[in-house]
Amino acid sequence: MWVIAEGYIPAESHGPEPQMTSHETVCLLNAGDRDAHLEITIYYSNREPVGPYKITVAARRTRHVRFNDLRDPETIPRDTDFSSVIRSDVPVVAQHTRLDSRQAENALLSTIAYPVAA
Amino acid sequence: MWVIAEGYIPAESHGPEPQMTSHETVCLLNAGDRDAHLEITIYYSNREPVGPYKITVAARRTRHVRFNDLRDPETIPRDTDFSSVIRSDVPVVAQHTRLDSRQAENALLSTIAYPVAA
Amino acid sequence: MWVIAEGYIPAESHGPEPQMTSHETVCLLNAGDRDAHLEITIYYSNREPVGPYKITVAARRTRHVRFNDLRDPETIPRDTDFSSVIRSDVPVVAQHTRLDSRQAENALLSTIAYPVAA
Amino acid sequence: MWVIAEGYIPAESHGPEPQMTSHETVCLLNAGDRDAHLEITIYYSNREPVGPYKITVAARRTRHVRFNDLRDPETIPRDTDFSSVIRSDVPVVAQHTRLDSRQAENALLSTIAYPVAA
Repeated sequence: MWVIAEGYIPAESHGPEPQMTSHETVCLLNAGDRDAHLEITIYYSNREPVGPYKITVAARRTRHVRFNDLRDPETIPRDTDFSSVIRSDVPVVAQHTRLDSRQAENALLSTIAYPVAA
Repeated sequence: MWVIAEGYIPAESHGPEPQMTSHETVCLLNAGDRDAHLEITIYYSNREPVGPYKITVAARRTRHVRFNDLRDPETIPRDTDFSSVIRSDVPVVAQHTRLDSRQAENALLSTIAYPVAA
Repeated sequence: MWVIAEGYIPAESHGPEPQMTSHETVCLLNAGDRDAHLEITIYYSNREPVGPYKITVAARRTRHVRFNDLRDPETIPRDTDFSSVIRSDVPVVAQHTRLDSRQAENALLSTIAYPVAA
Repeated sequence: MWVIAEGYIPAESHGPEPQMTSHETVCLLNAGDRDAHLEITIYYSNREPVGPYKITVAARRTRHVRFNDLRDPETIPRDTDFSSVIRSDVPVVAQHTRLDSRQAENALLSTIAYPVAA
């Protein structure tokens, strides 16, 4: 189980679309030989958690998932604080990134999600 | 127990208030089914620690706390180095963020607080 | 074994070459008294992993490796998401950095690679 | 024992001195009731390690140490990759920061140093 305590999708973006859209990404690596079935739950400050958002990461593959693109069961509202918890049926590594490296003036951050014994 | 060794609230801010105020935030997730009662202690370089600052994070909720907003027992002085230690009566995850993502030219950082066996 | 889930080498760079080339770096420390023989494997989203890229870090030395410079068995394509896994025959510490600190307007990030029991 | 694999002090700085000097900082927290005596060793890519640099962090205090300010046994050269290892006789927490938060256009980074069983 992985935890990303900090999440926030701003309402405004700068630069050409879609590369420069402000986005939150979780980078997932499944280095094993079995497909990973993940469930992401989104926690909010003022209502019950929403999920699971279901994601598959194939064996021996990386997958970069944008929180902006999550649709089912609902999109994540903009300008809203959230946290996320990621569960997987096989070991994966999750890393949180807010990434816009193609414009030098864009800030970015990256942090390893916090692993919790399931 | 969580430790954020690096803390600093600058005296100057850039951009519209209050969204663009320079701020230090700790993002807290309580994914469990019981409310979490937290105590934050602030450590300084040249005087005794101050605290506890008491924070509640409800069950199944996230809470983003700005160090700028802490008032009781006292506000945290600007332009001053500090560290913080967070204790909770139920498991939570803490992530430190200096976040101003709504302006592309604003720098930001994020790091998971360091977990220490209580 | 170390995992860096997030990797991305942009196609465009800003500033004088080669210092200002956009780059991904892994900083490796071998604080021990035996040379470390490392193997880096690169994982992609849509094809089988590539590797190993072989790196030696001498005893009591640090080495900063740019992913841009990896050549054998192949260069890493630009504008492509990847993850990396680092294995070593002696203990080392790996830290991922996207670093351009010589121009104030350049963003940077750094995160400790995620250690996994081999 | 704490490890910061990535270190780099640029030769050029931007902004008013000394606040805006480009700097590398390690933020140290000693939350315990005994003074901490630390030894920092600096590792290079092409010569033997240098140290120890001796630092005391008083009981219940934080201390932010700039690598730029280390003098004894020698200053750390600019424009040079290095790694650092921090040993302490009592438990402390170390966090690496490259911090210039008083100018919005300045990049910054922060990451928890990697703890290694001594």
